[in-house]
Amino acid sequence: MPALSKKGHAMPQSPIRKLAPFAEAAEARGTKIFQLNIGQPDIKTPQAALDAVKNASIDILSYSHSAGFLSYREKLAAYYTKQGIDLKPSEIIISTGGSEALLFTMGSVTDPGDEVIIPEPFYANYNGFATASGVNVVPVFSAIEEGFALPPIADFEKLITPKTKAIIICNPGNPTGYLYSHNEIKQLAALALKHDLFLIADEVYREFVYDGLEHHSILKERSIDNNAIMIDSVSKRFSMCGARIGCLASRNKEFMATAMKFAQARLSPPTLAQIASEAALDTPQSYFDEVIEEYVDRRNTLISGLNEIPGVKVSVPKGAFYCIAELPIKDADDFARWLLVNFEKDGKTVMVAPAAGFYSTPNSGLNQVRIAYVLKKEDLVEAIFLLKEALAVYTSTNANQA
Amino acid sequence: MPALSKKGHAMPQSPIRKLAPFAEAAEARGTKIFQLNIGQPDIKTPQAALDAVKNASIDILSYSHSAGFLSYREKLAAYYTKQGIDLKPSEIIISTGGSEALLFTMGSVTDPGDEVIIPEPFYANYNGFATASGVNVVPVFSAIEEGFALPPIADFEKLITPKTKAIIICNPGNPTGYLYSHNEIKQLAALALKHDLFLIADEVYREFVYDGLEHHSILKERSIDNNAIMIDSVSKRFSMCGARIGCLASRNKEFMATAMKFAQARLSPPTLAQIASEAALDTPQSYFDEVIEEYVDRRNTLISGLNEIPGVKVSVPKGAFYCIAELPIKDADDFARWLLVNFEKDGKTVMVAPAAGFYSTPNSGLNQVRIAYVLKKEDLVEAIFLLKEALAVYTSTNANQA
Repeated sequence: MPALSKKGHAMPQSPIRKLAPFAEAAEARGTKIFQLNIGQPDIKTPQAALDAVKNASIDILSYSHSAGFLSYREKLAAYYTKQGIDLKPSEIIISTGGSEALLFTMGSVTDPGDEVIIPEPFYANYNGFATASGVNVVPVFSAIEEGFALPPIADFEKLITPKTKAIIICNPGNPTGYLYSHNEIKQLAALALKHDLFLIADEVYREFVYDGLEHHSILKERSIDNNAIMIDSVSKRFSMCGARIGCLASRNKEFMATAMKFAQARLSPPTLAQIASEAALDTPQSYFDEVIEEYVDRRNTLISGLNEIPGVKVSVPKGAFYCIAELPIKDADDFARWLLVNFEKDGKTVMVAPAAGFYSTPNSGLNQVRIAYVLKKEDLVEAIFLLKEALAVYTSTNANQA
Repeated sequence: MPALSKKGHAMPQSPIRKLAPFAEAAEARGTKIFQLNIGQPDIKTPQAALDAVKNASIDILSYSHSAGFLSYREKLAAYYTKQGIDLKPSEIIISTGGSEALLFTMGSVTDPGDEVIIPEPFYANYNGFATASGVNVVPVFSAIEEGFALPPIADFEKLITPKTKAIIICNPGNPTGYLYSHNEIKQLAALALKHDLFLIADEVYREFVYDGLEHHSILKERSIDNNAIMIDSVSKRFSMCGARIGCLASRNKEFMATAMKFAQARLSPPTLAQIASEAALDTPQSYFDEVIEEYVDRRNTLISGLNEIPGVKVSVPKGAFYCIAELPIKDADDFARWLLVNFEKDGKTVMVAPAAGFYSTPNSGLNQVRIAYVLKKEDLVEAIFLLKEALAVYTSTNANQA
C-alpha cells in the first residue's frame, strides 16, 4: 500500500469536528445535544440574501471571474468604505470562505519551513492551514487571567527569526472573544513595519463587538499598506456559514497579483453563494442591532451562569460569540467525549470543544473548553445547567479532578 | 516591503485566464469575442438542479458535514454504482470543485519535494496545484501524432524515483480529448501496483465519450483499491461550473481519513450548490444523449473546419470537449494576444488558450493551442472562419511563421 504524506499524518483533526461521530451516536440513541461546540449561529440568514438566489434567472450556472463578481467586489468596497476602510474592488479577491482566503495568503507569503507568529489560543484551523502549507506556527502565549489581551510586544520580538514571515491575529478573537484596542493594533502595526513582516488579521467577527466598544481594522493603519492583509467572510456576519464566501483584502499590489494566481488555479468562488452574499450587503443596520442585542444577552447569560459553577474560570468576551472557560478537570478532551458517550440527564447532554486544539504549545489548555453562545437564551440556560450537573458527576471521580 | 514566498513567485498564471485583461479591453472596444479558450459549456444546466435551490426552504444557510451532505453522498454512491463503480458513501468526500479534491489529494499523498508523473499535455491547473503543494511535476511526453495515447509504460518507468508518489491522468483528457482504452487503464494499474504508487484519475468528463466508445474508470480495477483515487466534479457533467462542487473517491481507508482532515480544516463545501448537485443526479439519460449528440456534431464541425486551414494539425478527440491544434506559427502566446489586441474582422475575433501552459517541459507546445468546442455550431463555424482569416494575416509576417 502506498505511503501517505508526512503532511497528511501531521494534519490536525479539527477539535471542533472530531467529536462528530460520538455526537452522531448519541443522537442515534435519542439524546438531545445542546451544541456549544460549533460556531454555527442560530440567527436567521437575511431574507434578502436567500431571496436573491431564489429570484436569480440562471440558465447556465457558469464560472465567475476568479476574483469574484466585479459587481460584488464593488459593493463590498463600498461596504468597507462605510466602515472607514478605504478599499478599491481591485484590492479584494472573493474566496471560498475565509478558509480559502487564509490558504491563498499563506501560500503567497510563506514557503515550507517558514514561521508565523500567532497569539494563542487561536482559531484551531490556523494549525490545519499552516500544516497544509508546511509552515510552523510559533505561538505567543496570552493568558486567561489577562482576558487574552495582546501579549507584550517584547514577547513577540523574542520569537522573531529570519524565518518569520507574518503575524496572524483574529480580531475579535475566536476562541477568546477578545477585542484588540486601537493601541494594541498600533503596536502590532509598528512591530510589522519594524521587522518587515506581514500582519494578517482575520476580521470575520468585525460586527460582533459589544459594550459600546469599537473595532479597529488593520486596514485603517495606512502606514502598513504593504504589510496588512485582511481576511473576511460572510459566514458569521450574515449567519450564512454554508455559503462559503469570504475574501482577502490588501493594498499590497504584488501580494494581490500573487494571491490571484492561487485564485485562478481553482477557477472561481461559488456562483450561487456570491449572488446571496452580494444581496446580503443590503441588510439594514437594524438587523445587526438586533443580533448584537441578542448576543450581548446571551453572553451575559452564559458568563453569569458559568461563574456560578464551582471551579469554573472565564473571562468576559468583548466580541465574537465564544469564550474560553477553564474547568475544574484535568482533561477536557476526555470530558467532552464523556459528555457524549456517558452522560445524559432527562435525555439531554451538551457538546463543548476541548481548547487544547486552539493551542499550538503541547499540553496547553488541557483543562479549558471553548463555548460558542450561538443558542437561544432558554437553550443556553439549560445547556449551562447540564454542564454544571455533568461537571458534578464527572469530578466526583477523583481521577478526573483538576 | 515584506518579501512574498518563492512558491508565490513560482505559481503559474492560468494560461486560460491570463488573457482575460486583453479580452476585457477588446470587449470594451465593442469587439465580439468567440471564446474557444475556456471550458465553460453553453449547454443549459438541468432545470431540476436550479429548481431545487429555488424551492429549498432555508432559514439559516448553515455548514454541512465536512464530507458533504450524507444524502448527497448516498445518491452519488448510487450514481457510481449504476456506472459500474461500486462505492459506499463513506468512500466519497464532497469538495469545492474538482480543484479542491485535487488539492486534498496532493496534500494527503505528497510532501514538498515529492514527484508526480503526468502525461503531458495535461490540465494546466495541475501545475498550479503542484506548485501550491511544493510538488514537482515530472511530465511524460504524449504525442499529437499518436492522438495523445498513453505513452509506453517504459517511458513512465524511466522517470520513477524514490520521490515518485503518484501518477495523475485525466480521462477523457483535458486538453487532448483522448480517451484511455481499457488496456491502457490496466497497464497503468499494473504500474501503480508494481511500484506502490497512487494512481489519481481526474474523470470529470466521464459522460463525454463519443463514437460508441466506453469509459473505463480506475475504480473498476479492483486490484488497486488501495492505490486508486478518483477526482470528479459536477461542473461539466451538468453544465454547472459555477456550483464549485466536486468530490474525491477512494477505497483506501487511510487515505480517506487523511483527506478528511484537510476537509475539516475548511469546514464544509458550499451548501446551496450541494442542493443543486444532489438534485442534478435525477437528470435523465436523455439529457446526456442530447448533449453528447450536440458535442459530436460540434467536434465534427470543428475538426473538419480546422483540417481545412493550411498548416493546421489536429487529432480527433474521442471524449471531453477539447482538442489540441498545432498551428503554422512560432509562438501561440503571442498569437493569442494578437487575436485580442490587433485582430478583428467585422468587429469580431476569437480567443484560444496557448498550449504551452498545458506542458510542464519548458518550450513545449509553443505552436499549439487548446480549443474548447463549447459554442453552438453556427458560432463554431464563424469562429473557425475567423481563426483561418486571422492565421492568414498573422502568418503574412515572416517573423510569425513556424
